[in-house]
Amino acid sequence: MTETHRFTPSAWSNVLADMAPAMHISSGDIVITETLDAAGTNAHGEQTADRPNPMNGPIYVAGAEPGDALRVDILRIDPARETGWTRAALSANVLEPEYARNIPPRDRSEWIIDRKASTVRLEAPGAALKHLILPYAPMIGCFGVAPAGGEAISTATSGRNGGNMDYRGFTIGCSVSFPVSVSGALFFVGDCHAAQGDGEISGTGVETCCDVELRLTVEKHGGIGWPRGELDNRIFTVGNARPLDQALQHATTEMVAWLKSDYGLSDSDAAHLLGQTVRYEVGNVFNPAYTMICSVEKKWLPEKPKMA
Amino acid sequence: MTETHRFTPSAWSNVLADMAPAMHISSGDIVITETLDAAGTNAHGEQTADRPNPMNGPIYVAGAEPGDALRVDILRIDPARETGWTRAALSANVLEPEYARNIPPRDRSEWIIDRKASTVRLEAPGAALKHLILPYAPMIGCFGVAPAGGEAISTATSGRNGGNMDYRGFTIGCSVSFPVSVSGALFFVGDCHAAQGDGEISGTGVETCCDVELRLTVEKHGGIGWPRGELDNRIFTVGNARPLDQALQHATTEMVAWLKSDYGLSDSDAAHLLGQTVRYEVGNVFNPAYTMICSVEKKWLPEKPKMA
Amino acid sequence: MTETHRFTPSAWSNVLADMAPAMHISSGDIVITETLDAAGTNAHGEQTADRPNPMNGPIYVAGAEPGDALRVDILRIDPARETGWTRAALSANVLEPEYARNIPPRDRSEWIIDRKASTVRLEAPGAALKHLILPYAPMIGCFGVAPAGGEAISTATSGRNGGNMDYRGFTIGCSVSFPVSVSGALFFVGDCHAAQGDGEISGTGVETCCDVELRLTVEKHGGIGWPRGELDNRIFTVGNARPLDQALQHATTEMVAWLKSDYGLSDSDAAHLLGQTVRYEVGNVFNPAYTMICSVEKKWLPEKPKMA
Amino acid sequence: MTETHRFTPSAWSNVLADMAPAMHISSGDIVITETLDAAGTNAHGEQTADRPNPMNGPIYVAGAEPGDALRVDILRIDPARETGWTRAALSANVLEPEYARNIPPRDRSEWIIDRKASTVRLEAPGAALKHLILPYAPMIGCFGVAPAGGEAISTATSGRNGGNMDYRGFTIGCSVSFPVSVSGALFFVGDCHAAQGDGEISGTGVETCCDVELRLTVEKHGGIGWPRGELDNRIFTVGNARPLDQALQHATTEMVAWLKSDYGLSDSDAAHLLGQTVRYEVGNVFNPAYTMICSVEKKWLPEKPKMA
Repeated sequence: MTETHRFTPSAWSNVLADMAPAMHISSGDIVITETLDAAGTNAHGEQTADRPNPMNGPIYVAGAEPGDALRVDILRIDPARETGWTRAALSANVLEPEYARNIPPRDRSEWIIDRKASTVRLEAPGAALKHLILPYAPMIGCFGVAPAGGEAISTATSGRNGGNMDYRGFTIGCSVSFPVSVSGALFFVGDCHAAQGDGEISGTGVETCCDVELRLTVEKHGGIGWPRGELDNRIFTVGNARPLDQALQHATTEMVAWLKSDYGLSDSDAAHLLGQTVRYEVGNVFNPAYTMICSVEKKWLPEKPKMA
Repeated sequence: MTETHRFTPSAWSNVLADMAPAMHISSGDIVITETLDAAGTNAHGEQTADRPNPMNGPIYVAGAEPGDALRVDILRIDPARETGWTRAALSANVLEPEYARNIPPRDRSEWIIDRKASTVRLEAPGAALKHLILPYAPMIGCFGVAPAGGEAISTATSGRNGGNMDYRGFTIGCSVSFPVSVSGALFFVGDCHAAQGDGEISGTGVETCCDVELRLTVEKHGGIGWPRGELDNRIFTVGNARPLDQALQHATTEMVAWLKSDYGLSDSDAAHLLGQTVRYEVGNVFNPAYTMICSVEKKWLPEKPKMA
Repeated sequence: MTETHRFTPSAWSNVLADMAPAMHISSGDIVITETLDAAGTNAHGEQTADRPNPMNGPIYVAGAEPGDALRVDILRIDPARETGWTRAALSANVLEPEYARNIPPRDRSEWIIDRKASTVRLEAPGAALKHLILPYAPMIGCFGVAPAGGEAISTATSGRNGGNMDYRGFTIGCSVSFPVSVSGALFFVGDCHAAQGDGEISGTGVETCCDVELRLTVEKHGGIGWPRGELDNRIFTVGNARPLDQALQHATTEMVAWLKSDYGLSDSDAAHLLGQTVRYEVGNVFNPAYTMICSVEKKWLPEKPKMA
Repeated sequence: MTETHRFTPSAWSNVLADMAPAMHISSGDIVITETLDAAGTNAHGEQTADRPNPMNGPIYVAGAEPGDALRVDILRIDPARETGWTRAALSANVLEPEYARNIPPRDRSEWIIDRKASTVRLEAPGAALKHLILPYAPMIGCFGVAPAGGEAISTATSGRNGGNMDYRGFTIGCSVSFPVSVSGALFFVGDCHAAQGDGEISGTGVETCCDVELRLTVEKHGGIGWPRGELDNRIFTVGNARPLDQALQHATTEMVAWLKSDYGLSDSDAAHLLGQTVRYEVGNVFNPAYTMICSVEKKWLPEKPKMA
């Protein structure tokens, strides 16, 4: 029988790594936890942890062993306060190099998260942006599991184990599986955004604290190389690297591997299917590793062959 | 009064360049023309021109001068035959380098374009792809104008002047404006696809011949640096370069320039707007220059300030 | 019997392309010609052609046919005037993106070329550079042949056919072979520098006019894909692309092909030889295509197998 | 008074990280230690540690604090056994993507290190490589200090703190300074090569065990961002990232910072100096982060301004 746990951290991590668990749960259990914002500020405006992207965790999921996958079902992401913040300048690395001469200071701007209206808007917009009232579209900026090889990876970046991917699709209803490298998987989560464009190109979404509800399930013998997920009507894979070309290579290769192992496609079949139906989406293009998502609509997939 | 011209080429070009026009029209006129497929084959299966991507054109549009823009409204893309073809392997450059050892031969596969059902399917699918019946979703793979500086750019690649961008959004209802570098703009078009996933990652869409109907209009004093367009509910810019990071830089910088000049935004306003609403889409990632599209939904734009 | 020709152009080209030859010579003939600087200024300080990098040529070399190579032996590069110029700022694309905020204006600086002392120095150095007196180390910034496929490639960039590679090794004593794509090869030359660091990272070498003496020789059935050359004690290949990683891939693959076809190495032999002896040098990292040189010292090569 | 320590590890690390020191020394002391090869094999052919690149260390250097630099003088690198090994195939990522189809298996090849003759040669060369007898040219493939931010970085890659840079210049006589992020700096060393071409493009140098002698000295208030060093007649900086373009940006920006802070140059002075004298060298282009070295000959530097 699955349980629901409320997890209230007393310490936060700025790396994803193999470290002492803050909580133990069973596979299939639900965890509810309130995240800090990217700067380490809580729902009351108190800075309780250090930048960048302090993580709640790690959570030890019984039964997860290296070679397995940990599936995370995102059930709920509620705003835990009514303010968020962004930077008022695009990042130099998403603009033509010489244009960086024109970039304004990376000042902090405040946003209002209106829970009732379910909207997000600048607190003090200039005249040209007075109309800009965005829907509350929450997402998890940074989450994942302990990486392989004894690495401790900064929450400013990402890798095979997940991390700071800043993909808008990591929202309510999304399921994503991470490759497990240590016993218990060791799951971390934080850095929620009330809204964000593709790429997190100003270096921030609308940074805030959220109350998130997640189900964590061990998938035995996942054998996956990079994060894989399902969202709406599609399946997707995630590649994290620079340049974007390499992130795209990882995501595409992982999708081909998936189509071959689970759907019975040959490499040529995969070429036909992906060549005419693949979709790419851009995650983080601000931090050290960039993120590319490769997806296919489920309606184009063959039925999964039955397991013997 | 605008005219409609049927253009039937007797020669085709494999470069976009300043050359003798095949036809002269007025700004706002409509051109209807049947394109060859990427291999130079016509609707009757006869090879009448050379690879790669032979172009119909160039068309001289009266009044277009360097510094202007040429707007192309895509009014219609009808299939001109009932067959298409693809390659049965993904391109090595979209896969992890070592995985290229596994890539099957780049054999040609035939597809059936069913005009009545408005579908596209493999002629001889393997067992795992028997269900794959795609909607006819036509697009123009390669079009644009003569480039600046006396260059002649292969139709295998792309640049500021357009070219082989392979963006699925270049479909019926799309308008796109190219920066004009020579008198008359000199417009070229060809390489239509009956369907295509993002990136043209098998090196082809479903390559076929189409009957296309386009309106060509001179926009005086466009002052644009890269292609700009409108599609459905959004405006977009196009960057063409390698790596994808650089294509993204061009597209984003062009969007910032557009928001500043036409919508009255400051750099900080543009950071706020794009940071929380921008969308990126991947065009060609097979040919020498890669293509990235940067878009914003129109509903997030301020009203265009009135011209003085 | 080989002839020596003095070539005095009356027109210059800003593209490398298949165009009407300005001179016809025989294979093995020597051409002496005075180049303009990158801005189109001649030895008397008169601007006689347009930017960028106006070329002397093209020169038609009898007997050169597509598939052959054109070997260029650089015999002499003498200064044609006693002044040169540079830009007083590094290019934004060789610096960390955010650092571009600090880059000074790209003002022009004047240099003195002292023929007697064989030195190059700033005309008005700041206090910290008063000691900077560089040796005259001339090189050809931009040269090559007409490209394939009817392309006309700007002299601001480079490709398989050569072009604006800005490699310091293109100096007296160097031989370089370009792949021929049109009858007569059509050779172009210009953009000489009196000195230059790797990469042309301020966007210029010491830009000046030179009197160059070159021998042009047709190599039948060269079958090369990218420029190949010899310099001092080494052989080298050239790759031109972005990012540098791709330029390195082209140069390395071309070297492997050369070692296999001419020196009897297997792919594994080539891995052993290159893995432990290869050297890379950086050409242009300022312009659209970057340049990477891959070289091996001749002493590590096996004797060339005899032709049957 | 400086001391000399013989360090014989009983455990090895596959990450550079903040962990319990294996030895404490004073600033200026000398450490002598025998490294394992990249596969974890010792001088007697016994595998005593795991891949990749097991490190001797960490060594705590008293007085080193975050913000300082740790200078490493490489005094001696002697072969500790008479065998080495390599891979018999180039890495796919240094070849054109489609060429990867031709790459042979990455079999291991054995090499003989002849201490008397001071040479390195294949044990069983093919006919075409029988002549290939290379000089013993030892280098340290992987060394550095604990990184910032609590990260643990795999010895397969590199960063601001050093790591697996595979630069041929890390040889006897070289001094290199790493930015310190934790008390005691925590120095690690291993992965020596008896010979190596640029880039480690077959994925290995001649991998072997060496007896290395190093002096470790704390430089107070170094304030450096990336490794800096001196070698022969030049000073150099190191950038580690992908693509190579970004590694070059880091190395160049670090060199500009150095020239400004220590040599009194302005940004324009630095542009003049580097623009006409800079040299780039390629370190590792096999592993996740690539390495680029930026150097200037000392003779082109102004005298260092006196400290006040």
